[in-house]
Amino acid sequence: MEVPPVNRSPIILDSDPGLDDAVALQYLLGTGLWDLKAFTAVAGNVPLDHTYRNARALTRALRIDGDVPVYRGVGRTLSRISPDSGGFHGENGLGDEIIPDSTAPHQTESAVQAILRLSKEYEGELTLVATGPLTNVAAALIEDPDLARRLKKLVFMGGAVHTGNITPVAEFNVWADPEATDIVVTSGAPYTMVGLDATHAWRFTQGDLDTLVAAGPGQELTANLMRHYLKSYDVNAGQPDCPLHDPLAVGVAADESFVTAADGTIVVECASELTRGQTVFLPADEARTYAYSDAIKARTLQTGRVALGKGPRNFSAHFTENLLRWPSA
Amino acid sequence: MEVPPVNRSPIILDSDPGLDDAVALQYLLGTGLWDLKAFTAVAGNVPLDHTYRNARALTRALRIDGDVPVYRGVGRTLSRISPDSGGFHGENGLGDEIIPDSTAPHQTESAVQAILRLSKEYEGELTLVATGPLTNVAAALIEDPDLARRLKKLVFMGGAVHTGNITPVAEFNVWADPEATDIVVTSGAPYTMVGLDATHAWRFTQGDLDTLVAAGPGQELTANLMRHYLKSYDVNAGQPDCPLHDPLAVGVAADESFVTAADGTIVVECASELTRGQTVFLPADEARTYAYSDAIKARTLQTGRVALGKGPRNFSAHFTENLLRWPSA
Amino acid sequence: MEVPPVNRSPIILDSDPGLDDAVALQYLLGTGLWDLKAFTAVAGNVPLDHTYRNARALTRALRIDGDVPVYRGVGRTLSRISPDSGGFHGENGLGDEIIPDSTAPHQTESAVQAILRLSKEYEGELTLVATGPLTNVAAALIEDPDLARRLKKLVFMGGAVHTGNITPVAEFNVWADPEATDIVVTSGAPYTMVGLDATHAWRFTQGDLDTLVAAGPGQELTANLMRHYLKSYDVNAGQPDCPLHDPLAVGVAADESFVTAADGTIVVECASELTRGQTVFLPADEARTYAYSDAIKARTLQTGRVALGKGPRNFSAHFTENLLRWPSA
Amino acid sequence: MEVPPVNRSPIILDSDPGLDDAVALQYLLGTGLWDLKAFTAVAGNVPLDHTYRNARALTRALRIDGDVPVYRGVGRTLSRISPDSGGFHGENGLGDEIIPDSTAPHQTESAVQAILRLSKEYEGELTLVATGPLTNVAAALIEDPDLARRLKKLVFMGGAVHTGNITPVAEFNVWADPEATDIVVTSGAPYTMVGLDATHAWRFTQGDLDTLVAAGPGQELTANLMRHYLKSYDVNAGQPDCPLHDPLAVGVAADESFVTAADGTIVVECASELTRGQTVFLPADEARTYAYSDAIKARTLQTGRVALGKGPRNFSAHFTENLLRWPSA
Repeated sequence: MEVPPVNRSPIILDSDPGLDDAVALQYLLGTGLWDLKAFTAVAGNVPLDHTYRNARALTRALRIDGDVPVYRGVGRTLSRISPDSGGFHGENGLGDEIIPDSTAPHQTESAVQAILRLSKEYEGELTLVATGPLTNVAAALIEDPDLARRLKKLVFMGGAVHTGNITPVAEFNVWADPEATDIVVTSGAPYTMVGLDATHAWRFTQGDLDTLVAAGPGQELTANLMRHYLKSYDVNAGQPDCPLHDPLAVGVAADESFVTAADGTIVVECASELTRGQTVFLPADEARTYAYSDAIKARTLQTGRVALGKGPRNFSAHFTENLLRWPSA
Repeated sequence: MEVPPVNRSPIILDSDPGLDDAVALQYLLGTGLWDLKAFTAVAGNVPLDHTYRNARALTRALRIDGDVPVYRGVGRTLSRISPDSGGFHGENGLGDEIIPDSTAPHQTESAVQAILRLSKEYEGELTLVATGPLTNVAAALIEDPDLARRLKKLVFMGGAVHTGNITPVAEFNVWADPEATDIVVTSGAPYTMVGLDATHAWRFTQGDLDTLVAAGPGQELTANLMRHYLKSYDVNAGQPDCPLHDPLAVGVAADESFVTAADGTIVVECASELTRGQTVFLPADEARTYAYSDAIKARTLQTGRVALGKGPRNFSAHFTENLLRWPSA
Repeated sequence: MEVPPVNRSPIILDSDPGLDDAVALQYLLGTGLWDLKAFTAVAGNVPLDHTYRNARALTRALRIDGDVPVYRGVGRTLSRISPDSGGFHGENGLGDEIIPDSTAPHQTESAVQAILRLSKEYEGELTLVATGPLTNVAAALIEDPDLARRLKKLVFMGGAVHTGNITPVAEFNVWADPEATDIVVTSGAPYTMVGLDATHAWRFTQGDLDTLVAAGPGQELTANLMRHYLKSYDVNAGQPDCPLHDPLAVGVAADESFVTAADGTIVVECASELTRGQTVFLPADEARTYAYSDAIKARTLQTGRVALGKGPRNFSAHFTENLLRWPSA
Repeated sequence: MEVPPVNRSPIILDSDPGLDDAVALQYLLGTGLWDLKAFTAVAGNVPLDHTYRNARALTRALRIDGDVPVYRGVGRTLSRISPDSGGFHGENGLGDEIIPDSTAPHQTESAVQAILRLSKEYEGELTLVATGPLTNVAAALIEDPDLARRLKKLVFMGGAVHTGNITPVAEFNVWADPEATDIVVTSGAPYTMVGLDATHAWRFTQGDLDTLVAAGPGQELTANLMRHYLKSYDVNAGQPDCPLHDPLAVGVAADESFVTAADGTIVVECASELTRGQTVFLPADEARTYAYSDAIKARTLQTGRVALGKGPRNFSAHFTENLLRWPSA
């Protein structure tokens, strides 16, 4: 007997699938905690044509085809440099896994319009989780800054307080569109940044993959995606397991105890090539002690939550467990 | 007998009224060359609440109330610094002239959505003239980059090749939102920049004001606006006459011979405070001779037209003449 | 019977005393490993008038007055912002400890000239340790770039790979003159950066202070300096012990095993206020994988050694032990 | 009968010969107004090895060999980018004119030390004219900031208020070492900037060349240099005559009426590639009206004189006339 989804909270997942975006969606569905109102695609790991097509195909693969509308996002970043994750997620963004397109008609509404509309329909209740560059979210905030106060919570995967990946100091999603990130963290929205400091702490292992494989055909697609992801980390970073970047952002949206976090201000470097996309963190209780001009110190009024490491609750276990609860078609 | 508007071209005027924006609208109507599809407000000379209210009131004052829809634009710039023209246009943006609000209902569509929709309805035919910061136009280009190729022409008042006004090197509209300008000039849209090099060359004099005054009640509002504008230039810049910034952009949209212009690339300074908002001009035939990195030289592929000074056709005379053809209510 | 200093290597100590600079000098003398050819003062923790006066007084207090010449360094940083450590080292830089001036005549030669001359006299043999901003060293490299290849080794205390102190991402010495640091790390000199990642790992405790106190009058000055230093860390950072910043750089000049270190490139942020003075570290084996332009990647040819943490040999113990070997007057 | 040089003022010429540097020296000697204490070479138009060798050879060619000491300057710029004028001055910097080296022994003192020493010997009387990048002058100011107040006057050829040459907004000498220029204009020295706004206004024509040729063997070298310079302007800029960049700076050192000039502040762009080396001019009476932060406005305290165009006295005629007064050997 199915428990009625009485308490499920409205959520939008904005993403650039992308291997870990794909499993983040599956995990989100598996938790049973969310009423997914829209799945919006943004350019990032691969260009928009791919991420939009992948997003549609994933709704079909994950048995929500037609139930959860997919919206096409904005076609360029605010910044001048086009993101490109260099083949990490395979040519098509899904590790070259071929899955059939959605059978639903294309939405006429854009991702930005859908985000704005839903934020009004579910004012004060809506959670927005972004697992790609923040271009869609920033575009929505530019068109309607009041979006910031209508959101219940905004969680994004991106940034790094201590060590980056695309450069020594910057994480890919923020580096791909630092201006968009800057608009988000200065918007006044109640945000939580889930960056590399936390995502690198929760790993997916070969053992987890074995569990998926053992689960049979309902996890075959997932196993294929995660196998490719593990292989990318092995080849590119020499790591035998892989971080759970995007799923962790979804996890934190429901329960912050997967991470340790602190209040503070993120200031995004937009001006210098060397440090482009760095998310400088000013802890709330130290922000005013630094040797910064008033222009930078003024930003410390806009605090968010920043994940700084692994929390007490085990996310890796929780993640695989919930994938198993939502087999693909 | 009224001549039917057979050949009038579809146009959107995006502006931040603003004294010279107001008369730019009147001048546009006076030319009889344009079919004004939308009047869209953006923050700039004064905050958005004022410019939107002024835009609506101006449609009533200029007898197009209800005929030309007014749309509210985006409420923040892409850049972090809020523009503020320091009282130049009076507290309310119209030299403290009080004019009654429009009687038309407020549009539910936003300026960005209206621009995108009209660009599809009039694909290849639509001219867009922007006389304030380019925030609305950039937001539309972010949401739908194809807007660039659907426009027939994009003319904006802003920038300066040789000497700025808000700083020694930057003009107010571009300085107010350099990131937005950067998005416009790299969009591929067929743009013409009408900056201070040209607008300072065509002046409005006390004699022109006398002409408006002599024209009676139909030019009383216009005369009041221009009197305040002349006074602002006298007080702030010690100049007895004033430049025709915004009207010239409207003029050039119909006839480039009001200015001399050249093909070339505008690169907008977004990184440095000292030169923020500077519109560096690389003439098409010299662009590749400069000591720039490939990253900057790559931009020289996206050329526009840049007004560099006064052209053969007398704009000052043309301007006043057309104001007289469209008296206010 | 005194062992003749047959194997002592020629060294210059360039510093801005400064509490930990003072004890770094004492420690250097205590090791018996070095033939100190010059003690050169630079502005930093306090202005040059103070650091120069302190440097002279310290040679008297440490019984090398007249034997080791003290040279006055350059009076401004290369960068525009004057450093100021905000009273951390007391008003006069020595925790308000009053010690008598040197009796030696003032040198007519400047610090820059002394560095250049000694680098020729001891070509290939000379070690230069800098514990303040790198202004003197940079000025010498500007006047004579060949200095870089004449030095046997250049060790500087400064920088931070992961976490700064004066800002979240920058350490004081580098932040105080990033342009000078940039000149040093691009000079081709064989440098080792000893930054906060390593210096925060070796602490001086209340127990160490007790040891100094117990040693009697010959360590009274030292104990007073370190007591003030401990207090500054307690008051400003809430830490019960303090890092051994400057002494560690002297220690590493003789034995790298006090730290773990890696080959790689330091690129100094000079352009942006937010990240000013950040020392971005590109490990030698990963430098070319980052998303940087050729202009930045070209710098990876100039590698140095970068201390990244605590090494196997115990520096804290070694430090106190050697202080005891060189009592003050 | 030779008039004794009773009133000739002490001067240092710091330059990077360079075609127009060469004739600037000849012109300086021709005026009879100056007691040339040192001729110092800096890297610029060509690398230092060439400019130093050229400087020595020119003293011989101009019959001051051994009388005027030549000093070798600093071997790198403060900034990271090495200047290179791209063959404009020929491979060796003197239009491939081969002239014999000086017979004088090489000075052991460096250019920086010579400048500092002479500024003390002639405190309050010494004029310093720099016609290349300001690296030597900045290095001297770094080592001894008091140099600024010991100079009677500092005139440099460089910068551009309205239009650059190496980029649309920057002039070569300043672009080659913006950090050095920044140090000079913030030093407090009484400086006059003679930039492109003025130097482009005084031209050397084919007619002037004919005059030199007609003057016979004593002007043969000069004619060859200027013929090459005219040709470079013809080939590279399509101009039939050429500006008198470096000579004008020497001229203005004696008589400002060759130019129009104004009091004001130069702020040098050091942070952005696009506008690197731009010399933003804030007129003394308008400086505080611009939309700048206090950090930039604070610099307006350090004003200099800035040449803005042609002055009443004819420099072109004066120049050629004085060349004729000082034939080469």
